[in-house]
Amino acid sequence: MAATFSFGVDYYPEQWPEERWALDARLMAEAGINTVRLAEFGWAKMEPDPGLFNFGWLDRAIEILAAQNIQIVLGTPTASAPPWLYQRHPDAFRVLESGDRQTYGHRRYNCPNHPAYREYSMRITTRMAEHFAQHPAVIGWQIDNEFAQGDRCCCPICTKRFQDWLKKRYHNLKNLNECWGTAFWSHGYSEWSQIPAPLKTAGSPNPGLMLDYLRFSSDSYVDFQREQVKILRKRCPSHLITHNMMGFGFNQLDNFQMARDLDFVSWDCYLHTQWDVDRQVHPHDIALSHAAMRGLKQKNFWVIEQQVGLSGWEIVGKMVRPGQTRLWAYQSIAHGADGILFFRWRSARFGTEQYWHGILNHHGQTGRFYAEIQQMGRELQSLAAEVSGSSVPSQVAIIQCYDSRFAFQIQANHKDFTYTGHINQIYQAFHAQNIAVDVISPHVDLSKYQLVIAPALHVLPAAVAERLESYVASGGVLVITPRSGVKDEANAIVDLPLPGLLARLCGVEILEYIPLYDQVSQVLSLEPGAPDLLPLVANLWCEVLQPTTAQVVTRYSEDYFKGQAAITMNRYQNGRVITVGTFGQPDLYTALLPWLCELASVQPILKAPTGVEVTLRQKNQTDYLFLLNHTAQDQTVMLDAAYTDLITEEHNIKQQISLDPYGVAVLRKK
Amino acid sequence: MAATFSFGVDYYPEQWPEERWALDARLMAEAGINTVRLAEFGWAKMEPDPGLFNFGWLDRAIEILAAQNIQIVLGTPTASAPPWLYQRHPDAFRVLESGDRQTYGHRRYNCPNHPAYREYSMRITTRMAEHFAQHPAVIGWQIDNEFAQGDRCCCPICTKRFQDWLKKRYHNLKNLNECWGTAFWSHGYSEWSQIPAPLKTAGSPNPGLMLDYLRFSSDSYVDFQREQVKILRKRCPSHLITHNMMGFGFNQLDNFQMARDLDFVSWDCYLHTQWDVDRQVHPHDIALSHAAMRGLKQKNFWVIEQQVGLSGWEIVGKMVRPGQTRLWAYQSIAHGADGILFFRWRSARFGTEQYWHGILNHHGQTGRFYAEIQQMGRELQSLAAEVSGSSVPSQVAIIQCYDSRFAFQIQANHKDFTYTGHINQIYQAFHAQNIAVDVISPHVDLSKYQLVIAPALHVLPAAVAERLESYVASGGVLVITPRSGVKDEANAIVDLPLPGLLARLCGVEILEYIPLYDQVSQVLSLEPGAPDLLPLVANLWCEVLQPTTAQVVTRYSEDYFKGQAAITMNRYQNGRVITVGTFGQPDLYTALLPWLCELASVQPILKAPTGVEVTLRQKNQTDYLFLLNHTAQDQTVMLDAAYTDLITEEHNIKQQISLDPYGVAVLRKK
Amino acid sequence: MAATFSFGVDYYPEQWPEERWALDARLMAEAGINTVRLAEFGWAKMEPDPGLFNFGWLDRAIEILAAQNIQIVLGTPTASAPPWLYQRHPDAFRVLESGDRQTYGHRRYNCPNHPAYREYSMRITTRMAEHFAQHPAVIGWQIDNEFAQGDRCCCPICTKRFQDWLKKRYHNLKNLNECWGTAFWSHGYSEWSQIPAPLKTAGSPNPGLMLDYLRFSSDSYVDFQREQVKILRKRCPSHLITHNMMGFGFNQLDNFQMARDLDFVSWDCYLHTQWDVDRQVHPHDIALSHAAMRGLKQKNFWVIEQQVGLSGWEIVGKMVRPGQTRLWAYQSIAHGADGILFFRWRSARFGTEQYWHGILNHHGQTGRFYAEIQQMGRELQSLAAEVSGSSVPSQVAIIQCYDSRFAFQIQANHKDFTYTGHINQIYQAFHAQNIAVDVISPHVDLSKYQLVIAPALHVLPAAVAERLESYVASGGVLVITPRSGVKDEANAIVDLPLPGLLARLCGVEILEYIPLYDQVSQVLSLEPGAPDLLPLVANLWCEVLQPTTAQVVTRYSEDYFKGQAAITMNRYQNGRVITVGTFGQPDLYTALLPWLCELASVQPILKAPTGVEVTLRQKNQTDYLFLLNHTAQDQTVMLDAAYTDLITEEHNIKQQISLDPYGVAVLRKK
Repeated sequence: MAATFSFGVDYYPEQWPEERWALDARLMAEAGINTVRLAEFGWAKMEPDPGLFNFGWLDRAIEILAAQNIQIVLGTPTASAPPWLYQRHPDAFRVLESGDRQTYGHRRYNCPNHPAYREYSMRITTRMAEHFAQHPAVIGWQIDNEFAQGDRCCCPICTKRFQDWLKKRYHNLKNLNECWGTAFWSHGYSEWSQIPAPLKTAGSPNPGLMLDYLRFSSDSYVDFQREQVKILRKRCPSHLITHNMMGFGFNQLDNFQMARDLDFVSWDCYLHTQWDVDRQVHPHDIALSHAAMRGLKQKNFWVIEQQVGLSGWEIVGKMVRPGQTRLWAYQSIAHGADGILFFRWRSARFGTEQYWHGILNHHGQTGRFYAEIQQMGRELQSLAAEVSGSSVPSQVAIIQCYDSRFAFQIQANHKDFTYTGHINQIYQAFHAQNIAVDVISPHVDLSKYQLVIAPALHVLPAAVAERLESYVASGGVLVITPRSGVKDEANAIVDLPLPGLLARLCGVEILEYIPLYDQVSQVLSLEPGAPDLLPLVANLWCEVLQPTTAQVVTRYSEDYFKGQAAITMNRYQNGRVITVGTFGQPDLYTALLPWLCELASVQPILKAPTGVEVTLRQKNQTDYLFLLNHTAQDQTVMLDAAYTDLITEEHNIKQQISLDPYGVAVLRKK
Repeated sequence: MAATFSFGVDYYPEQWPEERWALDARLMAEAGINTVRLAEFGWAKMEPDPGLFNFGWLDRAIEILAAQNIQIVLGTPTASAPPWLYQRHPDAFRVLESGDRQTYGHRRYNCPNHPAYREYSMRITTRMAEHFAQHPAVIGWQIDNEFAQGDRCCCPICTKRFQDWLKKRYHNLKNLNECWGTAFWSHGYSEWSQIPAPLKTAGSPNPGLMLDYLRFSSDSYVDFQREQVKILRKRCPSHLITHNMMGFGFNQLDNFQMARDLDFVSWDCYLHTQWDVDRQVHPHDIALSHAAMRGLKQKNFWVIEQQVGLSGWEIVGKMVRPGQTRLWAYQSIAHGADGILFFRWRSARFGTEQYWHGILNHHGQTGRFYAEIQQMGRELQSLAAEVSGSSVPSQVAIIQCYDSRFAFQIQANHKDFTYTGHINQIYQAFHAQNIAVDVISPHVDLSKYQLVIAPALHVLPAAVAERLESYVASGGVLVITPRSGVKDEANAIVDLPLPGLLARLCGVEILEYIPLYDQVSQVLSLEPGAPDLLPLVANLWCEVLQPTTAQVVTRYSEDYFKGQAAITMNRYQNGRVITVGTFGQPDLYTALLPWLCELASVQPILKAPTGVEVTLRQKNQTDYLFLLNHTAQDQTVMLDAAYTDLITEEHNIKQQISLDPYGVAVLRKK
Repeated sequence: MAATFSFGVDYYPEQWPEERWALDARLMAEAGINTVRLAEFGWAKMEPDPGLFNFGWLDRAIEILAAQNIQIVLGTPTASAPPWLYQRHPDAFRVLESGDRQTYGHRRYNCPNHPAYREYSMRITTRMAEHFAQHPAVIGWQIDNEFAQGDRCCCPICTKRFQDWLKKRYHNLKNLNECWGTAFWSHGYSEWSQIPAPLKTAGSPNPGLMLDYLRFSSDSYVDFQREQVKILRKRCPSHLITHNMMGFGFNQLDNFQMARDLDFVSWDCYLHTQWDVDRQVHPHDIALSHAAMRGLKQKNFWVIEQQVGLSGWEIVGKMVRPGQTRLWAYQSIAHGADGILFFRWRSARFGTEQYWHGILNHHGQTGRFYAEIQQMGRELQSLAAEVSGSSVPSQVAIIQCYDSRFAFQIQANHKDFTYTGHINQIYQAFHAQNIAVDVISPHVDLSKYQLVIAPALHVLPAAVAERLESYVASGGVLVITPRSGVKDEANAIVDLPLPGLLARLCGVEILEYIPLYDQVSQVLSLEPGAPDLLPLVANLWCEVLQPTTAQVVTRYSEDYFKGQAAITMNRYQNGRVITVGTFGQPDLYTALLPWLCELASVQPILKAPTGVEVTLRQKNQTDYLFLLNHTAQDQTVMLDAAYTDLITEEHNIKQQISLDPYGVAVLRKK
């Protein structure tokens, strides 16, 4: 980790007087910073007029940083094209789902498929790659910036591309018309060119068309990124390539596809922004994003933008208390980050992000945030070498399926249901018990997991159903939740009893499904002989399960479906499948957890008080425990063995360890 | 009714494999189904390319159904034109009130006045009429589908048509300028072509222009429908013609005008859809829609789409409990339906309405809904012959005036007032007492009613005022509520003391009107000698009544208008006029009802427990009572005479009858 | 005041039959009316076709009014151009911030910079000026009507004008790019023509660009008004010129700039409109508008539209109780109005404002509003001569800074903060104690005030900082509140410790600022030796003050900044500066007031019961007290000296005076 752990900042020398740069670089070095990201919004500085390139300022900035032994990650600057580009190509603005064309003044205003935008993007990428390929301080690249932002483009260029994309997928219109069911409402297309982009001005779309448009839109960005990756791979073969994703919450892109072309995943980790002032962001929310980002390539990642302080544009986000910046950065490492870059070095005096505060304040002074990061820099001196190369083991996986995620964006099924909220509900139960969870694609090997949860696996290809079947057949424990197996890949409802391709595996048929509204819920009654569980409460959605081969675990206790099965367990070859018929109240999986863990022989890493998060990283049979106190109180954690505290360097800690408010301990077993 | 009662489904053979059709037809026949609606969304199948017609699939579907003795109602398919039409005529999309042009992907996207759309519509209608005129199974036509949906069109074509429409109404600009009062804000038009369609981007419109635009928009659909009616009358003179309206709640069209050209009215009856998940839909809400639909032509009607199960697009609507589908269908018959077609036969696997569930589930199996409808089919075997030809008698009428309804859409007067809510408030009081009410046009004969309520008769032509005067003069009892007589036909405020043309009839002048906000209300004080009523509470709106010839019934008890008259009664020749000066709390008419019924000698059909609805149909002096238990509990209804239960065929039921949860009884007196 | 006090109405003869005019004029005269505003929406009547002028109807109306000794204020009619103008120039419609172009049907639809609109506007103004210059009854002009209404225009014409405006301000693009910090997000402009108008379709704008656009938009109206003023000054040199502004609440225009070219300010004073039905409008809200309007030119003003009755468009606003119309009109005089014109004479039968009720009702009858105004007309006969020429003295000033106001519109800093609400919070505390306050520009002389509050002086030019320093140096008491001194004139954050240019004067540096969300607040702890104040509660925003030379007054009591200074006082030469570090709960300034008044030797005019407002006007050392009872109860006010009641003409009132509900007394101090 000493060699491989990147500890740094995002820095915008172009926003500050050149005479300040040396002081900034020295202050960085004094804080233990070894990595800086540069230039991802510097296009207009690098190419002030079309075809006129100027890398001098960037060369000088890199020299000054390199002189402090700081290594550089360069951003390709295509997230914000210069004004001259939009002036030359007014149709490069994307068309929003409202049908309005975006206008100039922000960033990411472009249609990702606009030919001139793509051409200019490839040219600046090529020129940067050529210019910096041999620079000893440059270690890698971030492609563009936060692709997932904002609306999808629905412009005529995208519409045409979409039609071409459909031709590849469906080959002929007859097939497309059948798959989408265009017999409904007389939508039968007689020419490809009739197929529209789904604008809001159309009204509720055909679900098949809509799902394909979401896939196509995601593919457009995957494709755009790949073009840049190819340029960089060719010219800078030794450089690392990443992109800064946005965690679990953003809906636009299939991040599994996005991750495929990258060396590793990065993401931008913010807890308290202006968009969060009316809600609580919990440690498990961030932990879930880490798990989801780690799951994209099933390997470690970077946090390339780690929140420092108050974060907002028009308004200032919630306070960041002393210790929290360091705590959150350690949480990132605890979940598998091998790089942490703080956003941003110094608060901007100008622009939309004036209130997205950095380590230094607007007038360039150091303060409590600098001190905290400097402390962490010191701690990492010894820590890094130990933890370097370790990974985050997990016995449990949650399957995230982008087709299902997109499908629920189109049809939520219940007004209070979201796919991401459902995954969060399940993840949270494991997190509260300090049980590590991977959030993975439905297309990866499941055999390494003892417990797999496949929440609301709505769009279900046969290959995935088969994968789940093999997993269970070989002894796995699988949990299936409502609305699984409902849709085929064209977003049509299957011509099968539900849960469709999973019915045999689950050993049930769903007789009917019943949405609950008006705050109605009901307690489930445990079947005699069922495990002794906390009260389980049905909520939002009830599926009436008719067991074929499964045993009943709980039944509904009210209304006309009283007495019908709500949760079942099916033995299938060497494994078991639990079918949960209700989305339940938020704590449903908290109540189910002891039973599920017992079935799958899953253990917590360590028991800890509420608010103290424990994670494990492992290397060469050595366990590294991260203890993170997210509370404002002192906390004591009972230990199960003897440990060395890698921060305090205290050895042979046995019974217990004490954590300060927002405090952190990193323990090596023995 | 055996011969005349249509019991059936809406069926979309084009959405299913042809080899399935025979099984569907057999299952229908086994459920007692005798009528099927077809083809109203089949345009792209019937005319896959412009001018290329293909009725073969429909012929084959009809053959298969006819073989099961099922008769056919065909829909003209103009509610959803094929993609080729919009591709050829991009300006056929309507322009929404936002100024945005609608885009492709849903249904009813067209401007109703677009020449090419009208031409294509007439051609497909003509071709269908010619093709099916002689088919023995075809008994009638539904024009288009649910005209009232969505926004009005405000495109340039409509704007020009509107100007022409205005020329016919006002003859010259001087007259129009005077009627609309364009001296206000300098709107004087010097050319017809200056008159705009009222877009939201204009801001609050001139009330005269706006009312005329709502009339014009309604007329556009009336005119479009009439063109189809003419084609069908000419080619299929023996066929029935109807249109599926949308009940009482939809605001766009003057349904009295729409009904004029039809043989009978149909409507689509849904209680629990995705748009109702946050509110309670009550039996009286549906009963009011039945009354309003029956009142359009003052004759019986069809429910051509009767809800079966869960109904939604993006989300699934509220649950439908066992028995409710049958109950709701009987409620339709109880209020005058002579035909019931369930929507839809089988749940769609594709398209926007995947979650608008039919009798069969997505994978084509029968279940509890099929069983319930089959039961009803059996019951109707005997029932139909009895009840056939009966009508729904009523002593009470509520006047619905579309000019007033439109005017309140433009200017609600109070932020919590709606015209339809006010009618609902009044209707509900009668419904709770099982008193039948007709909801009628202000332009029909009133002499058959003992009690007429004219709620908020805002726009009042002299002819209507005279009609009300004659009604009262001949001994009728009339109730007038706030904001009556305020506007002339150009939506200008009358140059008269309020209630304008009704002042003499009411025997009052309105000194002033006072809106109540901030949840303020006040109890009215009863005048000595007034009837002994439940507490009457003024709310939303208080009109200070100054009696000229009327007697005071109640007075205001608070604020600066304390002691002023709130409700008065005026004897006018042989009748009486009650003037109610406040909109009151929701239960105001519940409190007033005993007195009003006493004044008008109106009696309930039968007293019944709360939640049990009782209606009456009559034929040749025979009374048929429908008892509908809308509750989840058993209910007992005390009887006033001996009855025969036409469902159980039990005779001479005297004292009482018991109803299951969601149960129904149809009783013949003696 | 007899000669100079204008008591009148807004009248629209063009909306009524000519034969009615004489009766209207007589009724006006009988109510004591001496002034009428005419014609501000009469363009289409005066110029029914382009270039065809017709002033005959207006001449006749003026003759009839003049015959009753009524003098005339004419409105230039440019707030609503006739339909022919928009038909000829479709691009004269403004483009809203949404990017949509406005459409016809309301008023003020024009782009203020459209050349043809400006040309037509100047022509009608010129023709009116020439026609009425010599008319003996005409005394003055109102320019246009309520400029502040509605959205800013963002059309291509405005965009081009904005670029020209920027050229004048920044001279070259390098300077503009630096001032705006376009290095952020790659916004570097290489041509002036690249600079956009900030549409909502762009997303969050650059704060520098946005502030300049708000200034430019305001300047466009200032410029448009100035063109009319020039025409009128030249042709009607003896006439008065005013414009009807909209009080304190409207955000669009820099009213200090608008006022500069006028002889005096007028404003339209409405308390209960359709937009206020869900909130309470308090007497201090209106008083603040009066203070703000008076402060624009630091002289008396007119209320040219004074609310009469219920006011609404689509819905009717809250009730107006007997006495309130008169009370509100007296409140206007009490705060410095030298003219009161009631809006409007008679309620309109037509048009959008049918429910904006006048003195006469729709059918032209007099009633309680006429009686009340007639009473006031009588009272003014004697009162006017006394009070005429008096002014409203004040020892306290609140600085209103439009740059700061605009900046907070762009970035509110906290989701519950508004600049106008903050000023209201402070004003209200003084108002409750009957302490007069001027609301003034930061650019005027402060030396006459004993206490100056500079709330949230966010955008702070050096000249203003210097002015504040001189004020304090000379012995003034100054209050500074959070977010002061943060921005330079380009809306960039200063490169200085906060409060920036005020840090030395305040004797503090702000260590950090902390927004409070989730309804969190905390009581401040008083420093030993601090004045004995009511509990002070921190809310919304906490600035951690580090005293350099200031003394601590209160400290924070909770969270990690517990014990840090929250309010400080700094002695600076002969004066003192109080720095308030929190926005606080609404009553913060109520609690601080006694201390602030003691420091600055400020006294209430008179103590009075809650709900009784007391103001002072002065002339030649004579005090005139206005006592205004805003409650529905009788109130008794204790007097501090002997007074004469100028309404009842009772002399030598000493101990106390009694006020009816909504009653008024005007007292001359002996």
